Amino acid sequence: MKKLYLLLFAALFCIAAAQPIKDYTGFKEASAIKQRGLEGRYDSLIKAADIDEYLKHLSAHPHHLGSANDRANADYILQKFRSWGYEARIDTFYALFPTPKFRLLEEISPNTFKAGLAEPALKEDLTSSQTAEQLPTYNCYSADGDVTGELVYVNQGAPADYDDLERMGVDVKGKIIIARYGGSWRGIKPRLGQEHGAIGCIIYSDPKDDGYYQGDVYPKGPYRNENGVQRGSVMDIPLYPGDPLTPGYADTEHAKRLDRKDVTNLLKIPVLPISYQDAKPFLAGLSGQVVPERWKGALPFTYHVGPGPVKAHLKLQFNWDVKPVYDVIATLKGSEYPDEWVIRGNHYDAWVNGADDPISGQAAMLNEAQAIGQLAKEGMRPKRTIVYCAWDGEEEGLLGSTEWVEANATELQQKAVAYINTDATARGFMYAGGSHTLQKLVNEVATDVQDPEMNISILDRAKARQVIDAKPKEQKEMLSSSEYKIDALGSGSDFSPFLQHVGIAALDIAFGGEGNGGEYHSIYDSYDMFKRFKDPGFQYEVVIAKTAGRVTLRMANADVLPFNFQDFYSMINGYATEMMKNMEEMRTTTEVNNQLVKEKYYTRSSDPTITYVAPTAKDVVPYLDFSALQNALAALKTSAAQFESLSVGAEQLPETTIHQLNILLYQSERKLLMETGLPDRGWYKQGIYAPGYYQGYGVKTLPAVREAIENRKWQLAQQQSGLTAKMLLAYSKQIDAAAELLKKK
Amino acid sequence: MKKLYLLLFAALFCIAAAQPIKDYTGFKEASAIKQRGLEGRYDSLIKAADIDEYLKHLSAHPHHLGSANDRANADYILQKFRSWGYEARIDTFYALFPTPKFRLLEEISPNTFKAGLAEPALKEDLTSSQTAEQLPTYNCYSADGDVTGELVYVNQGAPADYDDLERMGVDVKGKIIIARYGGSWRGIKPRLGQEHGAIGCIIYSDPKDDGYYQGDVYPKGPYRNENGVQRGSVMDIPLYPGDPLTPGYADTEHAKRLDRKDVTNLLKIPVLPISYQDAKPFLAGLSGQVVPERWKGALPFTYHVGPGPVKAHLKLQFNWDVKPVYDVIATLKGSEYPDEWVIRGNHYDAWVNGADDPISGQAAMLNEAQAIGQLAKEGMRPKRTIVYCAWDGEEEGLLGSTEWVEANATELQQKAVAYINTDATARGFMYAGGSHTLQKLVNEVATDVQDPEMNISILDRAKARQVIDAKPKEQKEMLSSSEYKIDALGSGSDFSPFLQHVGIAALDIAFGGEGNGGEYHSIYDSYDMFKRFKDPGFQYEVVIAKTAGRVTLRMANADVLPFNFQDFYSMINGYATEMMKNMEEMRTTTEVNNQLVKEKYYTRSSDPTITYVAPTAKDVVPYLDFSALQNALAALKTSAAQFESLSVGAEQLPETTIHQLNILLYQSERKLLMETGLPDRGWYKQGIYAPGYYQGYGVKTLPAVREAIENRKWQLAQQQSGLTAKMLLAYSKQIDAAAELLKKK
Repeated sequence: MKKLYLLLFAALFCIAAAQPIKDYTGFKEASAIKQRGLEGRYDSLIKAADIDEYLKHLSAHPHHLGSANDRANADYILQKFRSWGYEARIDTFYALFPTPKFRLLEEISPNTFKAGLAEPALKEDLTSSQTAEQLPTYNCYSADGDVTGELVYVNQGAPADYDDLERMGVDVKGKIIIARYGGSWRGIKPRLGQEHGAIGCIIYSDPKDDGYYQGDVYPKGPYRNENGVQRGSVMDIPLYPGDPLTPGYADTEHAKRLDRKDVTNLLKIPVLPISYQDAKPFLAGLSGQVVPERWKGALPFTYHVGPGPVKAHLKLQFNWDVKPVYDVIATLKGSEYPDEWVIRGNHYDAWVNGADDPISGQAAMLNEAQAIGQLAKEGMRPKRTIVYCAWDGEEEGLLGSTEWVEANATELQQKAVAYINTDATARGFMYAGGSHTLQKLVNEVATDVQDPEMNISILDRAKARQVIDAKPKEQKEMLSSSEYKIDALGSGSDFSPFLQHVGIAALDIAFGGEGNGGEYHSIYDSYDMFKRFKDPGFQYEVVIAKTAGRVTLRMANADVLPFNFQDFYSMINGYATEMMKNMEEMRTTTEVNNQLVKEKYYTRSSDPTITYVAPTAKDVVPYLDFSALQNALAALKTSAAQFESLSVGAEQLPETTIHQLNILLYQSERKLLMETGLPDRGWYKQGIYAPGYYQGYGVKTLPAVREAIENRKWQLAQQQSGLTAKMLLAYSKQIDAAAELLKKK
Repeated sequence: MKKLYLLLFAALFCIAAAQPIKDYTGFKEASAIKQRGLEGRYDSLIKAADIDEYLKHLSAHPHHLGSANDRANADYILQKFRSWGYEARIDTFYALFPTPKFRLLEEISPNTFKAGLAEPALKEDLTSSQTAEQLPTYNCYSADGDVTGELVYVNQGAPADYDDLERMGVDVKGKIIIARYGGSWRGIKPRLGQEHGAIGCIIYSDPKDDGYYQGDVYPKGPYRNENGVQRGSVMDIPLYPGDPLTPGYADTEHAKRLDRKDVTNLLKIPVLPISYQDAKPFLAGLSGQVVPERWKGALPFTYHVGPGPVKAHLKLQFNWDVKPVYDVIATLKGSEYPDEWVIRGNHYDAWVNGADDPISGQAAMLNEAQAIGQLAKEGMRPKRTIVYCAWDGEEEGLLGSTEWVEANATELQQKAVAYINTDATARGFMYAGGSHTLQKLVNEVATDVQDPEMNISILDRAKARQVIDAKPKEQKEMLSSSEYKIDALGSGSDFSPFLQHVGIAALDIAFGGEGNGGEYHSIYDSYDMFKRFKDPGFQYEVVIAKTAGRVTLRMANADVLPFNFQDFYSMINGYATEMMKNMEEMRTTTEVNNQLVKEKYYTRSSDPTITYVAPTAKDVVPYLDFSALQNALAALKTSAAQFESLSVGAEQLPETTIHQLNILLYQSERKLLMETGLPDRGWYKQGIYAPGYYQGYGVKTLPAVREAIENRKWQLAQQQSGLTAKMLLAYSKQIDAAAELLKKK
């Protein structure tokens, strides 16, 4: 077989060599030619049938953290890696993982109704009948509780919704709140409810958001049917992810653990997710004011806020077990720089069968690892070490990745070049987020991968999507730029500890937009569903393997690591400008608000027969001194430009200089860590990207300053602006040090 | 009784005289003092109990055009006016008025279903059981027809919806369309369908728009229940209103009438309005693409566009009768200027019982006329003649008012000072629209009327509503202005022929915003409904009588008519600026669109498994020469400012000069008529305000130019810009002539 491969490779090589070499930033011409050949061979090894096999196998049974199927999947993955030539092992951690012991939700007055709390099997969905193996519908890290109270509908339970509640004169104190999914991350809903005095929380899936309002429901179409329930974690991840009992350090078998009552990122109230079939009687029975327009869902009745008259009884008890977390770690040692690690990961644990979330990403990653293993066997071993990570316990709060990062922090900070993440994926367009130093790399890779539905690159399709989705005002400017802009990353998958806790450049890549549905975290996220609706031909499974694999291989083989500081400067400067503009707008809206309050406009425009509590005056927005931040950005601009102009031909530098240079480059990201971390949540150390404290998954850029401004903490904003400037100056200094090396040419 | 009145009057007078006299523009000091006393007495004559009585009587039975109850109401109103001292008569016209002979709507495949087409009686609503007297649910001026075809859902059936249909590759040719109410005037829906080749049209009330999505439904709450149907006219009013058989002239008994087949403002396809209960099976059965976001209603299933597989059969036959239209005209001759007419009107015909539409306005107007008649008896006869008009046949297409205006056009152009309209009204805030020359008057009057719910003026409440409803960006500017801005008027009530056909300054006044519901044009627009939800205490009935009566009395008694040209200039200049800015934006969006087309962005961002027809390139937006319009606006600014500065103390001019001046002032509005009328719809002659040809009721300001631009008819826009400039110059000249008189001081 080997001869045939070599022949094939040579043929590919010849075709490739006929085209001009470009878009291989960081590669010498000879290396680029070699890399192009290697990538051609790589593509030929990615096979829809293999991915289909892995996906089918790994999603054949429910396989949540701590289950026998989860362990079996870990072993399957381990054996696969080993069979492909990887040094593979399982790193085990031990994390707090509550599962339901007792669940009851009922209406006790004025009517009586007991919520079913079950997702029925469907004959069109083979695995949906594996009831005994399925985790019941619940929110992981809900508190135990037995509460009875009047119900209040709180829309999505976000901060703006509590403003509206205040306008309506409705207090959730002593009440059970019912919130719909969406808008903010689910964990924010009970946390904000708890902050406002609620005693319990129900979260339901409104058909507006992922049900019949969006499209036909399962099994006719892909959207959530009346019985579908979204499971999910409600750990306070924006405070810190990972095992709640071991904040900032690894939960190894004998690690010292916090007492559960001392843990800061766990709720004190019970929370339960339900279907809209279960939610209907509760919502339809509410009286009180008709809710504001943006609160309205798609159920066929008038939405009222309450409180009551519906009284609910919610009783939840959990087994508060510590369960093993099995991270499968597979290493392919680099031929030239074994101590430079390109890390590639995707979790494999699921809430139930998880064919899409996360197995679609895991199966493609396995095929990718298989192909790279094969390349090594064929003599194309990567220069740098590639580390494949199949994470466990992601769903509960990034347990596997966080504990692994915490366990290996020192070594990672020395050796990690970048972390490349994937997770659930489907048919459609490439979406990439991550460190903006890697934006150019993403663009170069995406130029070279063909979209399977149209005869163009995935870059052209991704860019088209981005432009068409933009506001009309922004389209004109975007049309004049040839780059696809990658997103900033918040949280919601395993890139977070790498990027935000230890300062490793990270990317997160997915495809989607044409395989939307409502299967998320339900028993219907199944192989049958995936085959019908998410990616019927596994074509985008192949494409994500080609894309993420290429990114991995370019990082692993580049002569000079392809970090681009000008892209980084340009995006960060944009974020800073936008943040300062937002503050100006706050000043104006505060002025207008205060005048509206003073001159009684709010009260006068209200209906006196309906309770209305007018807004009050807000503190005036002061002028802050942003000069340190602005000077730091100016310095960064200069440093990035200098590095860029000096970097032409860097590949020609002596080998030892290149090695020194690369270390400076990939370690530059560490300089983006702020000494004390973010205010009040020091686990998040990176100063550029963090999940918003009130968004959960959604990103806040320049979070230390931005959130202080948004929370009207002016002194803190001033202080954090200085610290962010200091961080950026340290970062510029690192770029300058790299530039010094380039001067040796 | 008279002595008591005088005593009361004297008491009121004393209180009034203690306050400084202001806000009586156009009144000499002595006249203002007298007027204030008169208005105090006037207020005391407005009584909730009287209005309640009139409202209950006039809405006690269904009383549509041509019915015995309609005639009985005309006689009741006539007798009332006479009893209050008016010279009253009935002016009769004879208009085409089709009523249903046969109605059938059914699904014939894949399922069978026959629409009920009935609104059931409710025990909570006394008059809802008067089935024999009720007009069936139908759209007046639908064509006869018997059509069978596949169904296509077209959202609101507006131009933008046909763009979306084109994107989805769906053609309505040979199909029956189903549109939801809202977005544009109902008559636009079948007309556009017909233009696109549809063979029939169904219009239904989606619960999103006035049903349970908005609030609790009748009889629990005020919103439209599952069986409520909105009747209404589908005459092509934006072409011309009034009797379709006599365009531009009165349909007197022996007038020459067009043959029905030669009429341009009648449809050629059948149209039927239905409830959402009847619409459900049709909509739920559609397949094809899931509709765009903004198309989605609130019914509990996925909305698909079709076409089919649902096949509908629609058969409609009408009695195409000519029916008498009874306008009740009541005159109170002016003591000083009998040939200057202040005209005040409200229709009295309804689709069914019409307690709110229009009797709420009619009942208040009657009490107003009663009070003014009483004032005359007490020696406070108005200086100018007041003409009260109770219009018939408004619902079918402003029949009564249009024919009356056409019949009396010459005399009206000589004598009409202004026309003040009301129609349906309810609890809440004042909304006023009309000629901007009267904006100041509206502000002055609204300062003097107290809101019954809050201890402030109706002006303060109206302004608060206006500011709070504005976009945040506009609020700041609005806060620095003390004026309430009146709206520009399109169509939808009887002001249209006065304002837009013969150039009479007009106002339309209503209250609302706190009495919203879904009773519009259904059998549930009843006395019971009104008492529970629209204006329970008749307090706003009292307030509208005080407001509209005051406007009428100020116009009738002012020494110098209170037209303000600076307000007019300021608003018109704003409209022109906005129109030119819109054209600039069209240029940019056209450029962007054409680049998106050329570089295939639309196609590339689409899902190739779903039919998608990309937009095509549009003709480039040229630069037009707006200089004539801009110069005319500059001239108007100068003329208005000169008039304003000279007008101080105008009341002191000799009597004959004042008389000359007033004629110039009230006839100035005639100068806003364009010689040939609007392009392709010459009945609309006024160049400032017109109903949008594709909106129906919604206004287009500077319509001749604006619509040409919107329709990308650049040469026409250029030509109409010149004609509009010419019109404005003639208007400025009239102001200059008035200013000349003022120089005689």
